[in-house]
Amino acid sequence: MKVGFVGMGIMGSPMSQNLLKAGHEVTVWNRTAARCEAAEAAGASVAASLSEIARAGEIIFICVSDTPDVEQVLFGENGLASGLSAGQIVVDMSTISPEATEKFAGKLAAQGVEMLDAPVSGGEAGAIGATLAIMCGGKEGVFEQVKPAFEAMGKNIVYCGANGNGQRVKAVNQVICALNILACSEGMLLAKRAGLDLETVHKVVSSGAAGSWMLTNLGPKMVADDWAPGFMVKLQAKDLRIALNSIHSLGENFEGTELTTRLFNEAEQDYGDDGTQALVRLLGWEK
Amino acid sequence: MKVGFVGMGIMGSPMSQNLLKAGHEVTVWNRTAARCEAAEAAGASVAASLSEIARAGEIIFICVSDTPDVEQVLFGENGLASGLSAGQIVVDMSTISPEATEKFAGKLAAQGVEMLDAPVSGGEAGAIGATLAIMCGGKEGVFEQVKPAFEAMGKNIVYCGANGNGQRVKAVNQVICALNILACSEGMLLAKRAGLDLETVHKVVSSGAAGSWMLTNLGPKMVADDWAPGFMVKLQAKDLRIALNSIHSLGENFEGTELTTRLFNEAEQDYGDDGTQALVRLLGWEK
Repeated sequence: MKVGFVGMGIMGSPMSQNLLKAGHEVTVWNRTAARCEAAEAAGASVAASLSEIARAGEIIFICVSDTPDVEQVLFGENGLASGLSAGQIVVDMSTISPEATEKFAGKLAAQGVEMLDAPVSGGEAGAIGATLAIMCGGKEGVFEQVKPAFEAMGKNIVYCGANGNGQRVKAVNQVICALNILACSEGMLLAKRAGLDLETVHKVVSSGAAGSWMLTNLGPKMVADDWAPGFMVKLQAKDLRIALNSIHSLGENFEGTELTTRLFNEAEQDYGDDGTQALVRLLGWEK
Repeated sequence: MKVGFVGMGIMGSPMSQNLLKAGHEVTVWNRTAARCEAAEAAGASVAASLSEIARAGEIIFICVSDTPDVEQVLFGENGLASGLSAGQIVVDMSTISPEATEKFAGKLAAQGVEMLDAPVSGGEAGAIGATLAIMCGGKEGVFEQVKPAFEAMGKNIVYCGANGNGQRVKAVNQVICALNILACSEGMLLAKRAGLDLETVHKVVSSGAAGSWMLTNLGPKMVADDWAPGFMVKLQAKDLRIALNSIHSLGENFEGTELTTRLFNEAEQDYGDDGTQALVRLLGWEK
């Protein structure tokens, strides 16, 4: 297929390269043009503008940071929407507001353009290894059309219902991830303060009922004081703000997610570019 | 070996039967004598009193509910300690206070009796299947003496250091478990309130970075409104109170554990005998 890809960040760049590897014809664009180099070296064309990439193919993928970024890409001056024609498909793989997603999909539908929300989970490693989980909202027929491209980027590709539902499932995912990170942080910090052997503790607790992906993957990084990001604190904070907004919109008040959102917002001040395991630094790991 | 086993609850009874299966000579005792029947049918002798079971063998295991229960078994009127002689070993497999454990071990040491704290993780299924994780504090030489008996009851048997450290590792385990349960509860409730297909959500989120033992095992029970206990809310609440005490003793204040302790204490009022997945009922699952 001929496709466009907007957003050459730590996720978008390897995702676009996996589309190339699978034999698709890919044109890329990024606000900071230098970030297109890796994809270009792998065989991508580089578009000069958003209105140009709109004409690059039947499907245009977007993978940027936050709701305002997607809005700017789509509907900003000379944005994607200004160049799109009826019959094209926009696939937003960013993690943004489910409510805004519904609004964007409605505006695109008015010009005959289909939209899917398809946020991903699995971090940089999943983007590089094409093992991302992809949670997709939109029309099922459109999902089926795009599926071969999804299969070049991910492994666990799940149709979740109407527009916004991909983002809603992602919000559930992030709510659980954040509390699991807090669980590891408090557990490992208790072990440290109690003077226990951290490797012994990690080995025994991660193998039983306390086990989690987060404990397996982030626990050893905490023990090694390794704060390099698999997924950055500032992005987890952003995702939690989105999830908490949705929770409030539903008239709910989840105390755990209130707490993790506050803690990740605080952690963002000093440790925003660290990996999410740095939540334990906010709690006083290095004291 | 000739051993005694005090406490024929849902954990102690199958654990004593696994000792019998492994060829050990087991004498059992329980406050409510009727609960000894299953172990007796499997070949155990039944002691008439705590002072009698003190003479049942070289090692006396205890598996009861809480710190005051262990204190009563050991040092109550005609308690175990009154019948123990120098050279015997007491192995407390209950989950109790690490600080009290140190005190009990000291009192027993004064009469020449060794003590190990060896709390377990893995629930009733682990007790029956002899797959418990066993976290052991005490002298390493004593641990080695008892190890063959531990191997009849568990799989992941870890020496954690001096007396109290088995309980400290268990506290770490329970802190993490409780926050992981809250994570599942808020995540699955958000999915329900957002009108998502719960089985789809569970499938996709449990397979990625949000995955945990709790999500895998408790998520489907929530979806099925199945509140039968693998591990009871009231015991999780008790374990959290112990962990929070230790955290406070260390001069720390962990907001996540404060929250889970408060929520499990609240849940204990109405759902104390339910499984820990019933935390989601407190949050309004059935509303």
